[in-house]
Amino acid sequence: MYKIVLMRHGESTWNLANRFTGWVDVDLTEKGVAEARQAGQLLREAGFTFDLAYTSVLKRAIRTLWGTLDEMDLMWLPVRHHWRLNERHYGALQGLNKAETAAKYGDEQVMVWRRSYDTPPMPLEADDPRTSYNDPRYAGLKREEIPLTECLKDTVARVLPFWNDEIAPSIRSGKRIIISAHGNSLRALIKMLDGISDQDIVGLNIPNGQPLVYELDADLKPIKSYYLGDQAAIAAAMNAVASQGKAK
Amino acid sequence: MYKIVLMRHGESTWNLANRFTGWVDVDLTEKGVAEARQAGQLLREAGFTFDLAYTSVLKRAIRTLWGTLDEMDLMWLPVRHHWRLNERHYGALQGLNKAETAAKYGDEQVMVWRRSYDTPPMPLEADDPRTSYNDPRYAGLKREEIPLTECLKDTVARVLPFWNDEIAPSIRSGKRIIISAHGNSLRALIKMLDGISDQDIVGLNIPNGQPLVYELDADLKPIKSYYLGDQAAIAAAMNAVASQGKAK
Repeated sequence: MYKIVLMRHGESTWNLANRFTGWVDVDLTEKGVAEARQAGQLLREAGFTFDLAYTSVLKRAIRTLWGTLDEMDLMWLPVRHHWRLNERHYGALQGLNKAETAAKYGDEQVMVWRRSYDTPPMPLEADDPRTSYNDPRYAGLKREEIPLTECLKDTVARVLPFWNDEIAPSIRSGKRIIISAHGNSLRALIKMLDGISDQDIVGLNIPNGQPLVYELDADLKPIKSYYLGDQAAIAAAMNAVASQGKAK
Repeated sequence: MYKIVLMRHGESTWNLANRFTGWVDVDLTEKGVAEARQAGQLLREAGFTFDLAYTSVLKRAIRTLWGTLDEMDLMWLPVRHHWRLNERHYGALQGLNKAETAAKYGDEQVMVWRRSYDTPPMPLEADDPRTSYNDPRYAGLKREEIPLTECLKDTVARVLPFWNDEIAPSIRSGKRIIISAHGNSLRALIKMLDGISDQDIVGLNIPNGQPLVYELDADLKPIKSYYLGDQAAIAAAMNAVASQGKAK
């Protein structure tokens, strides 16, 4: 039996400003940093330790991991950063305020962009300065691997190869792992692990900075999963995520 | 031609307390954290960027790297932590105050322990709780690879295989690298790079938190080397390191 920990980054400046973030590399708020440390404390008190950490190439996930590892006295842990664990690319919505976008296009349209499984938002134009083409962290990628927008289905399609090629073999080799990532890259993993339908996965809300434990059998099928920590606070945080896209 | 950056960690709590540290995993002071960020700022302003970072498994070097990478907007950089980049193991002196030790054993004896190339301090006993045998970061090592004391010669002998097997091939492959390490693991590298004698290397003082640039030719032989930043401040910092072992 294996045990892995998934964690969505702590509160970011754009979670707070209620803006669509996607691949924009915004930082954590002070609260987000505190959440990361608290996650580390919970993990330590629950007797967890790790051999390897995975994270995206976005600083809100990396700083969350740093805070967690620091609190666990595991700063020396090997860390693998990979773009396939990045947040869903939000296309031309990146940078826009969620409530303003809802006021302009209607709650319903925004809910489609946020929660449809296979309808991506309008893409960035290839010459838009907001594309990731010139960002050195993606320099090793082919142009067509760098998204201009994504629906959740697209995110699933690029997250799963990384699970199959790197994460799953690590788990099978006996490594105890933690993954610090994003709402939608974690939805992709949870969809696959729990066999959740295309329709239901979009309604799954993952709170910021809360360690989510999966106990897996020899075939990496979940035996059970649970959040560490104060369950009422976690339920409240999940509801807060769900209501972000409303105009008022 | 290649360009690499070596950096000794920022001020640690035991640099400040003037205690022999070695493999004890003490943290940075606030000043040390600030030095790390300033190093990152200097590197950024001088147009440096990196593809890969190396550091020890000790948090004072890792936190220094974190501060530097954060300031350079390179938190996503691949980082390789390795015990071979650790500080020299200080044996039974680990934890003792340098001035008190000098008062007890005499300046001369302490200078031998600190600055002799091939005389190690008294070793830790194998059953001393201060050994690193049960530390998870060394769990992959053979018992005989974990030192109980080291002279600088021993440190050189365990640092160089890591240079030859991992760092040098990375440089030759075109990767721009930074190494965040310790006074004596960096002495080991500099001894090898500059061909410094056993006698002279012990007199080389490396200031905390100052980026040291080496420009190397195709055979990884130094063309030139220089510290970035305020040269007078660096000279003062080097003198401060040199005088730490005095009783008064």
